[in-house]
Formats: sequence, C-alpha cells, structure tokens
Amino acid sequence: MNGLPQADMKGDALDPVARLTALGGADMKRVEALLADRMASETDIIAKVARYLVEAGGKRIRPLITVASARMLGYEGDGHISLAASVEFIHSATLLHDDVVDDSDLRRGKTPANQVWSNPHSVLVGDFLFARAFMMMVDAGSMPALKVLSRAAAVIAEGEVRQLAAVRDIAVSRQAYMGIIEAKTAELFAAAAQVSPILAGAGPELETAMETYGRELGLAFQLVDDALDYGGIAVDLGKNTGDDFREGKITLPLALAIEAADAEERAFFERTISRLDQTDADFETAVALLNKHGALDATLQAARGHARRAVEALDAAPKNDWSDALAALAEFVVERAY
Amino acid sequence: MNGLPQADMKGDALDPVARLTALGGADMKRVEALLADRMASETDIIAKVARYLVEAGGKRIRPLITVASARMLGYEGDGHISLAASVEFIHSATLLHDDVVDDSDLRRGKTPANQVWSNPHSVLVGDFLFARAFMMMVDAGSMPALKVLSRAAAVIAEGEVRQLAAVRDIAVSRQAYMGIIEAKTAELFAAAAQVSPILAGAGPELETAMETYGRELGLAFQLVDDALDYGGIAVDLGKNTGDDFREGKITLPLALAIEAADAEERAFFERTISRLDQTDADFETAVALLNKHGALDATLQAARGHARRAVEALDAAPKNDWSDALAALAEFVVERAY
Repeated sequence: MNGLPQADMKGDALDPVARLTALGGADMKRVEALLADRMASETDIIAKVARYLVEAGGKRIRPLITVASARMLGYEGDGHISLAASVEFIHSATLLHDDVVDDSDLRRGKTPANQVWSNPHSVLVGDFLFARAFMMMVDAGSMPALKVLSRAAAVIAEGEVRQLAAVRDIAVSRQAYMGIIEAKTAELFAAAAQVSPILAGAGPELETAMETYGRELGLAFQLVDDALDYGGIAVDLGKNTGDDFREGKITLPLALAIEAADAEERAFFERTISRLDQTDADFETAVALLNKHGALDATLQAARGHARRAVEALDAAPKNDWSDALAALAEFVVERAY
Repeated sequence: MNGLPQADMKGDALDPVARLTALGGADMKRVEALLADRMASETDIIAKVARYLVEAGGKRIRPLITVASARMLGYEGDGHISLAASVEFIHSATLLHDDVVDDSDLRRGKTPANQVWSNPHSVLVGDFLFARAFMMMVDAGSMPALKVLSRAAAVIAEGEVRQLAAVRDIAVSRQAYMGIIEAKTAELFAAAAQVSPILAGAGPELETAMETYGRELGLAFQLVDDALDYGGIAVDLGKNTGDDFREGKITLPLALAIEAADAEERAFFERTISRLDQTDADFETAVALLNKHGALDATLQAARGHARRAVEALDAAPKNDWSDALAALAEFVVERAY
C-alpha cells in the first residue's frame, strides 16, 4: 500500500503541486501551449476574457491529474495533452458561469470577469471555452473519454443547480451538502483521473481506481476550500475569507455549526443566512461559533479521510514517481488548510 | 435541378414544416421521446426549466433537417435520432443563454425562462442541456459528426459575442452583420444538415452540398426573422414585434435603413439606437423609415436569394420525397414573411 509521504513532503523544498508540475513539466508546457492556442479567437474580446480567466488560472491541478495519471500508466501517446486541456477549459467555463450565478464582487480576492466585462460576456465566453473543450476531446479521439467528460459536464451543472437551491437554506444536511460537492466539484476531478486509464487502455480495474482517486481528492479539495473560506485552522481572516458566508452559501463547516447550534445561535444563523441580514461584525461571530462547535476541525477531518481514500485508491496502480506524486498531491490538498 | 415548388406548396393544406413533420413522423416521434428522456434530471428544477423551453419549443426545424437529410440519403441506422436531438438541445441551450444576454422582458411574446426563474437557472440549465447534447452525440458514435457539432457550438458563441459588441452600434455594416448571423444562426443549421451525410457515409461532395443547404437556409431563416421583428411585409405590428429595436440590436433591415438615412433620420437612429433613448411612438417611426428606404424589401430579397441557393445545393442530392420536402422548407422559410 502507498504510505502517506508526509515526512518526505515536509523535507521537500517544493510543494507537491510544484513537484508534480516539475515532474510533468514537458507535458504541462504542451498543455499550456494548447490552452493558449485554443482560447484564441478572431473575436478579440473572447481572447481577452478567456486569458483573464485561464492565465490567472491557479495551479492547474485538474490537468496535472490527467497528465500524471496517464504517465503513471505508461501512456505514450498525445491524447492526454488534449484531454488535460479539455478538463481545464471545462473548469474555466464553470468558473465564468459561477460568477454570474454567485454575483459577488470579489472571488478569492480577485474581481470576477463578469464585473470586469459583463454577465453576457461571462456566459458567452464560458460557452465558447466549453465548446472548445469538446473540440479538443475530439482531437484526442477517444469516444469513451468523451463519454466520461460529457457526463461530468452534465453532472456539474446539476450540482450547481442544487447548490443554488441550497443557498440560504439552513436546513441543508451534511449528506445533502456532500451530494452537492460530489457533483459540482468531485465529478470533474474523477473524470480528469479516469480518462487517463481509458486512453492508456489500462482496463476497468484501473479505471475504477483512478476515478475513485479523483473523486476522493475532489471531495477533500472542496472541503478544505470550504474550511479556508472561514480562515482554516490558522484562522487567518485577513485573506479572502467570508465569501461563502456573505453569499449565504451553505458549506459543511456552516452546516455542522447550524446542526449543533443552541436557540440563540440558531437565531443568529436565521438572521445572517436565511434572511441574509448581515453586519460587518457577523462574519467574526460566525467563525467563533464554527470553532466553538468544532465545525472547522470536523470538516478538515472529513477532508483528511477523503484524501486517505484517494491515496488508497492508488494501491491498484503501478508504483513509480508519478504515483508517488499523485499520493503526495492528495496529502497536500489537506495540508494547505493548516 | 430542383424547381422551386411554390405552386405545389400553395395548393397543399399543410405548410412544408408540417409536411416534413408528417413525412418524418416516426423519426420525429423518437426524437421527441429522446428529448423528453434526456432533459429529465433528479434535480426537479432542471427538468422544469428544460421543459419550459424545449416543450414550448417551436417547430423543431433543425432536428427535422437532420432527420430528413439522413433519410434522403438512405441512412438506415439510429444515429440521426441522437444527432437531431443534440442539435435541438444546443439550440435550446443557446436560447436560454441568449435570454440572459439580451435581458428582455418578452421574447416573441413569451416570458423568457430567466424571468420565470432567474439568470442563474437559465445559465446552469443551458449548461446542462449543452452537456446532455454532447452525451447524445457520443451515443451516435460518430467522431466526425462530433467534430462538426462541437465546432459549431464554438462558432455560435463567437457570433453571439460579436452580436453583443454590435448592439447600439449604428456603424455595423451589412457585411459585418451577415458575418454575425452566419456564426450565430447559420452555423447550427449547416451542422444539422452536414452530420447526416457524415452518418450515411455519403462522401465529401454531399457533405459540402448539405452543409451549404443548411447554411443558406439558416441565413434565409434569420433574415426573415429580422424582417418579421419589424412586422415583415404585411407590417402587422400587433404581434410580438419590436424586440430588436427596443434592445438596440442591429439587424439587416435596420443597418440598411441607417445606411440610407439623411441627416435628420440619422439623428433619430442615433437617439433611439446609439443612446437607446426611446419613446413608445419611436418603433412605428422606425418601421416607416425602414419602408421608406425599402429596407424590409431588400432584406427579404436577400433572404430569397439564400433560400434559392439552399434549394440549388440539393442538386447534388438524390431526388425523392425527402429532398422535395427539404426544398419546400427552404421556400417556406421565406414565404412566412408575407
């Protein structure tokens, strides 16, 4: 079984994402070039909006998973480059549409594209990236991979709609919430990992294993994100926190605190979440309540459980630098909350 | 060469769309069943929004083109049913997203879905239908058809963005406008027709011919739609007209009138379109100016030219009931403006 390479990781100057990026450097360079090429359009504004989103674009965790999974399985073709880029475009399209759905002024400290341009631009450029994602899947030439990714795109939209219905609903259960993030977040991670054994022809056992790896990693990733929006365990409230609270978005930390709340605390959540009637001081009160009820701890414990299951899923895979890096990535996703 | 079956058409109790629907009745029933099946979701609200759009859903001209083209070419498989339904879902997704982009209260006399529910619902259910469209393409199993349709989806988004940039811009030329509608409307008609020779393995000549048929029909369709928004030739202003004018959307009739306007008329368009400063009486004035400059006539003449080229493209196809019906459809698209 894969050990949890924590000690190893702590001694490493590079975080696992950087290590994985270095290991997959040549492939990721090709993915970046493909992203740049395929977001180009004769319509200037499309290229601008797409660049704003894709180039700002975070750590490319999803395409890294596709590339590393393919290499881990000894895949020697080019299809993983196209599919990795497809996965990133689906993610980018989702972010653009999320901004319209959430209608918030800042997203993790950055002005969302729909505020820089407009809602119509975010909708249409999202559609453009989504369509271009499917064009790249066609280039990869694998119908089973197309099936997995098109299904993921539909499930993501379903998850987003369910999340929309859950906004300001303090009755949302832990179970309902987990169902939402499994659809809106974990499904794309699962697909990103599953398409590689498909391309590599690695067989159904490895397809299931990698799909599980991606899904569990995605759940851990989202739960940590949710905890970080309340400052994580370090509780650093200065940095881009409180988006979810201010939007009345129910996440696991909040759901757990509401579940445990006494009458007075419940009244606080009814005012601030159900009625979205908030003052500036309310967020700090919320964080204090979450900590009082151990909701951030419990959320991160749940995240750790999912990360562990992601690592365990790699048992079925060959042991090599790539599988080590994928295991380290699962651990890192949780560590960043501390 | 295919004659223009006008005389024949006038003597027919059914309009060509109804005739084509009757001819393709068995196939279209399967398409309808598939649409109903694939818009279903465990998430109730998705099914409701999708039904509102797809069931209200007009005449299904695009899937009819796919079905009739496949049958005309002697195709005996099932793929045309899935692809016809895919084409309709892409169209429905586009309509849902258009509502968010246009932000108008009524669309052809009907309350748009984003007013019944919300912008987020329209965005997300559009994404859902779009993803489901790709799932159905996978079912059809033709990678070249997937290539055509995914490319069409990207081109549509580009056309929509260009149209957005053209709103309230009275400098938009006839040529620029034709480029916009070729992308936002004609591309999907072209794809709807082209996928059938691909499925039928009918060869590149028929692929090009049917792609041309669809594209020219799509251009005619959009030009007639634009003319009808100003009442068409009958100038019946009571019925769902004036949407484009009120949104400051430049269409061919308006572009032609602006081109021909004298200084005083130009000032009128600068106020009503560039500045979107309108009174209730302005629309009638606009219609009068369009007629004065023959802009509606010229638009419909252009539409007739495109319809003729659609019919001529069928020269390369086998002569049978299906090709006759497709030719009649092209004529009908123009006739409905009178």
